[in-house]
Amino acid sequence: MIASRLALSTEQIDAAARRVMARCEELARISADSGAITRVYLSPEHARVNALADAWMREVGMTTRQDAAGNQLGLLPAADPDAPVLMLGSHLDTVIDAGRFDGIVGVLMAIEVVRILRVASADGGWRSPFPFGIEVAAFADEEGTRFGRALLGSSAVAGTWDDAWWDLEDADGITLRDAHRAFGLDAAAIRDAARAPGQLVGYLEAHIEQGPELDRRDEPLAVVSSIASARRFQVVVEGEARHAGGTPYDMRRDALLGASEAALAVERICSSEHHIIGTVGQLEAFPGAVNVIPGETRMSIDLRGEFDGARDRVWERISRELDEIMGRRRLSWHAREVHSAPALFCAPLLQDVVREGIRASVASAEPASLFSPAGHDGMTLGALTDVGMLFLRNADGISHHPAESVLGGDVALGIRALAEAVAHRGAEPS
Amino acid sequence: MIASRLALSTEQIDAAARRVMARCEELARISADSGAITRVYLSPEHARVNALADAWMREVGMTTRQDAAGNQLGLLPAADPDAPVLMLGSHLDTVIDAGRFDGIVGVLMAIEVVRILRVASADGGWRSPFPFGIEVAAFADEEGTRFGRALLGSSAVAGTWDDAWWDLEDADGITLRDAHRAFGLDAAAIRDAARAPGQLVGYLEAHIEQGPELDRRDEPLAVVSSIASARRFQVVVEGEARHAGGTPYDMRRDALLGASEAALAVERICSSEHHIIGTVGQLEAFPGAVNVIPGETRMSIDLRGEFDGARDRVWERISRELDEIMGRRRLSWHAREVHSAPALFCAPLLQDVVREGIRASVASAEPASLFSPAGHDGMTLGALTDVGMLFLRNADGISHHPAESVLGGDVALGIRALAEAVAHRGAEPS
Repeated sequence: MIASRLALSTEQIDAAARRVMARCEELARISADSGAITRVYLSPEHARVNALADAWMREVGMTTRQDAAGNQLGLLPAADPDAPVLMLGSHLDTVIDAGRFDGIVGVLMAIEVVRILRVASADGGWRSPFPFGIEVAAFADEEGTRFGRALLGSSAVAGTWDDAWWDLEDADGITLRDAHRAFGLDAAAIRDAARAPGQLVGYLEAHIEQGPELDRRDEPLAVVSSIASARRFQVVVEGEARHAGGTPYDMRRDALLGASEAALAVERICSSEHHIIGTVGQLEAFPGAVNVIPGETRMSIDLRGEFDGARDRVWERISRELDEIMGRRRLSWHAREVHSAPALFCAPLLQDVVREGIRASVASAEPASLFSPAGHDGMTLGALTDVGMLFLRNADGISHHPAESVLGGDVALGIRALAEAVAHRGAEPS
Repeated sequence: MIASRLALSTEQIDAAARRVMARCEELARISADSGAITRVYLSPEHARVNALADAWMREVGMTTRQDAAGNQLGLLPAADPDAPVLMLGSHLDTVIDAGRFDGIVGVLMAIEVVRILRVASADGGWRSPFPFGIEVAAFADEEGTRFGRALLGSSAVAGTWDDAWWDLEDADGITLRDAHRAFGLDAAAIRDAARAPGQLVGYLEAHIEQGPELDRRDEPLAVVSSIASARRFQVVVEGEARHAGGTPYDMRRDALLGASEAALAVERICSSEHHIIGTVGQLEAFPGAVNVIPGETRMSIDLRGEFDGARDRVWERISRELDEIMGRRRLSWHAREVHSAPALFCAPLLQDVVREGIRASVASAEPASLFSPAGHDGMTLGALTDVGMLFLRNADGISHHPAESVLGGDVALGIRALAEAVAHRGAEPS
């Protein structure tokens, strides 16, 4: 694949990167928690960041809208208004006490790429110079922080929204249905958010790596080969709540001790397997009094793997281990699967254009190609269209944490690479 | 010790026991949670149960008051109004999702004992027939559920209230100071709740065993020899919150896995020691998202033992083990001691009168004598006066749980034993 490179000035790219960094700071101030960044689906903070993204999209000449799932969308049309679009984007929601770049930087970089690539249209506005339009998507829920089910925003776009999700509840017992209505959205229109495959030529996302590989290799950018397959479970361990003083050890059925063994078993089993990661991120004992033996413990298990089969075999091993632990401790357990996504292999053509983009931006022999253990919106969009991803180095791989960081210089390299990748895609047949 | 037995009819005792059982049900309906029993210090439910206890105390001829700590008190005076009192009682607060008898049954039994023992006074009211008055105390906080510090109510009476407690906070960040004021109490008067040693001849409490010993022995009542020494700690384990997908195992500092090992270490160490019980009742991982490695985990450790020295040596073993675990996992930990009480040995004279009471009530060869691993109000009152305790069997030893139970027949036997014990104490010199 050979295509002429874009004429991009260092000043232009640096200004774009500075704008992205400043806007990441501006979005970081929109949070449900003072002193921390927490921005969940269908919250007041969601509305506020959508309004900002809307203004920024309009500023670069896009026509904007919020879809029925609360995703914020901007369109730079092609000369032919009926032409399909290449979707660029990421998400604006966060985990609890998050960093300021995960998802966010990808949305803001996409807006800058539109600013770089747009050309004047016949009607005095702006258009895409390619045979496809460019659409920027700011997805409203990727993390699943509020309702425990991830990727709600991109699922609506991919047409895989499940009506069972309306009954999901947040920590306060508010259903997704009620939160969606309170946000001002129309549940009956949720299908209208879905796109037909013919409407897209692909989906390209820039995202921080959320892992240490680029930092270890001292490289700024990578092309992503595939996104991990993931399954998530909510596990309940049940024993018997009893008085902490009066109950001898031989009469105890302590649900917390069973769950503690289970958490350690997840670590032991997963760390013995190649390219499998398992994490217990949530664990809480109930009733949760200092002088009561826990009668119930609830925990999450998040399993990721490069391949679906290996991941499923690991879940079977964990399940057998939990049977043994709970049987020995006279406890019971059950798991509810709250998320399941197969591994998503990035489209060869989009891997190629991202690689070409990196080559145009970074003077390195061969761009790194990484598997992503972290989930991304591309996992759902893969059901609809080709997916490609560009990773940016983040220091020490720290993510989902206030210390999450990315270098402004890497963002500049990433903007150039993403713009070049889009241009390369534009030189290919649709 | 030989004293003539009281002339108590079966009908009288059975009616008293039925009243106690019915009132336990009535109090169980006063809860912050619908469908569960939760009644914490300085809550609206606290005010409601105090009002009921006040009415029941007045019904048997006592003069009543609420002290500056929110304890509900009733007095049946001696003929000499300046005579000291024998205090009977227990507590009306509960753990979260509690049973209906822990503490409560002891308060209600004490009121029935007053009804049984009272004699007409010269002024047409009622008085104690003994050289001491009888005071019934319904302590307002024994469990420590709300502020994490147990035995607040009886500490005020014992004169061991610590002004540092005013800054304790509940789960909503409300300080004890503010909750106390909102309840309508006067912090400046808290010292007035304290009694001088000369004002009491002793403290006698009836309580369910909260353990399985009496049930295993098929006996209804026991005399208590001592109350466990107890220490409670709030432990914080700190690691680093990171993305659950992108962080390889060799870079993780997972605070939940450290805490899980710690909880299992508490079990392993304590179960290897004689008459030591350790429990982790509270454990929660933060930030608590399914896709974030826990950067912090908070847990409680409750340690009880028959002897203070053994208990302290076990805490040292646990501390060393936590150092090893956290060092190996590159985590840090610290503990704050939130409660410490030495073992309380019941007064020989009060052990004797309780034993005599049981002999008068139950046709058994020799009343059981049990050590109490559970804490009780007597632990604090022991700083002020002699303490004696009567245990009632509860089925399977289940306590701090909705299934907590006591037989009405055992309550009848207990009322008779407690009344006889008071009468025996009345026959002894003050």
